[in-house]
Amino acid sequence: MTEIIESVPNFSEGQRKKVIDDIVSAVEAVSGIRILDVKPDADHNRTVLTIVGDGKSLKEATIALFEKAIEHIDLRKHKGEHPRMGAVDVVPFVPIQDVTTEDCVALSKEVGEMVAEKFKIPVYLYEDSATLADRKNLAKIRKGQFEGFSEKIKDAEWKPDFGPEEIHPSAGVVAIGARPFLVAFNVNLDTDNLAVAEAIGKQVRHIGGGLRFVKAMGIPLEERNITQISMNLTNYKKTPIYLAVELIRAMAERKGVNILGCELIGMSPADAFYDVAEFYLGLEDFSYDQIIEVMLAKEE
Amino acid sequence: MTEIIESVPNFSEGQRKKVIDDIVSAVEAVSGIRILDVKPDADHNRTVLTIVGDGKSLKEATIALFEKAIEHIDLRKHKGEHPRMGAVDVVPFVPIQDVTTEDCVALSKEVGEMVAEKFKIPVYLYEDSATLADRKNLAKIRKGQFEGFSEKIKDAEWKPDFGPEEIHPSAGVVAIGARPFLVAFNVNLDTDNLAVAEAIGKQVRHIGGGLRFVKAMGIPLEERNITQISMNLTNYKKTPIYLAVELIRAMAERKGVNILGCELIGMSPADAFYDVAEFYLGLEDFSYDQIIEVMLAKEE
Repeated sequence: MTEIIESVPNFSEGQRKKVIDDIVSAVEAVSGIRILDVKPDADHNRTVLTIVGDGKSLKEATIALFEKAIEHIDLRKHKGEHPRMGAVDVVPFVPIQDVTTEDCVALSKEVGEMVAEKFKIPVYLYEDSATLADRKNLAKIRKGQFEGFSEKIKDAEWKPDFGPEEIHPSAGVVAIGARPFLVAFNVNLDTDNLAVAEAIGKQVRHIGGGLRFVKAMGIPLEERNITQISMNLTNYKKTPIYLAVELIRAMAERKGVNILGCELIGMSPADAFYDVAEFYLGLEDFSYDQIIEVMLAKEE
Repeated sequence: MTEIIESVPNFSEGQRKKVIDDIVSAVEAVSGIRILDVKPDADHNRTVLTIVGDGKSLKEATIALFEKAIEHIDLRKHKGEHPRMGAVDVVPFVPIQDVTTEDCVALSKEVGEMVAEKFKIPVYLYEDSATLADRKNLAKIRKGQFEGFSEKIKDAEWKPDFGPEEIHPSAGVVAIGARPFLVAFNVNLDTDNLAVAEAIGKQVRHIGGGLRFVKAMGIPLEERNITQISMNLTNYKKTPIYLAVELIRAMAERKGVNILGCELIGMSPADAFYDVAEFYLGLEDFSYDQIIEVMLAKEE
């Protein structure tokens, strides 16, 4: 099998179509990578790119992305609902096939060093690449956002892993790191009572005492007159989709509420779905090697 | 994507290891094919081979298989529990990727013609390749088995599609055809009452008034002191795994019996599992393109 790494860079432009196109084109021009998804959000004023390739191509694509993003984006003039600290805000590297977390950590450090040197942007290594416990969590790094970072960076605790000890005047700072695949998964409830959805969201999420790799919140879906538990599953191997869904089901039933349906947002690795099928069917002695496509993807 | 066809030839030797090895080696020597599984059954005195490749390679592999099987197997001396009519008993071609049922029908006819001409073996086209309604069902063709076929073949209704109108003296006759992927799937019940399993098996299977693409029977699993509904799902797209399982669950519950677990026997295509996950999660607007591996398998 060939090495496949996913990268999901977020950059701070979600409104000016020409700018987004220009940035995406520069990434697309790099050989050996494929763009799986481009998701601009005007309210967030932010675009999420999903690209895959081997480490070498992704390194090149990330540099191309920074070059264009710095050219077009000035955070001093940037407004959007989503918190942000850089023109390129965050660059995660996710192992997909024939590659380890360690490989992705090494890649993130290489890329971080290059970005710092070439563009004079302070780089924070986060998640599996973090050098300090407080830097594992992206939200902690980003706290204070672009506007607060000129001060925050002077704190010895927030000395960047690579690059200058002052922010880039227009492009701010960036977080780069390896992390597991993130599955964005929502559960729709047959109630319009937001308090119910909010309470369940708090119960199932990690910070509320719930599942280790679940971020969740209850939100209204006003056009359907229902509510939703919107989740990020940050490690679907350790906290699988079905575990979160069944916990939500149990908590909802206790309140007389049913699950109407679920939504997978964006992409998922195939094995997350094999695991769901295995669980609900109660399969005995199942192995991924029983899936034809898995067998065929293996080299002889 | 490249064309992938699966072939699952059954040949009538499941005991003599040297013979099995010699036949398998001849198939393995053909370039462009891969052997996914070799399953000899001593009681059945029969081996099931699972191979994949493109049409051209599979044609060559099938000829190699016949050559060796005819050399080693004499049905006049063959005994086994499983019904059989030929040294090579049946050769199905199954579309897997980037290939249609029609392509597999065309392949089966080409191969059938070659086998008839080269080895003087009568060939019956079955399933999707059948030229007469009565030849769709393999069991109907095979009825009477090797011993009865010298007479059966004289019947105008049983004139072979290709080849001589008398059986090959030692190798009998063969059925060749295109068919959908067959998922072998068992459901284990927490009862040792065989009558319950048999009754449920009859209810869910097509001939008993049950699901269109289900063959099923209740059997005892004596070493575990439980019973099992053993199924072949002959078209998992039209009669999906979850449909059969949920019908069995409902019928079992009515009798105070629970499903202990399920077993996938052999291989399954990935989409059968995606469909199961989609059903049990109640996914809204799910598309296979949301699976990373599906996207990556597509050519740009």
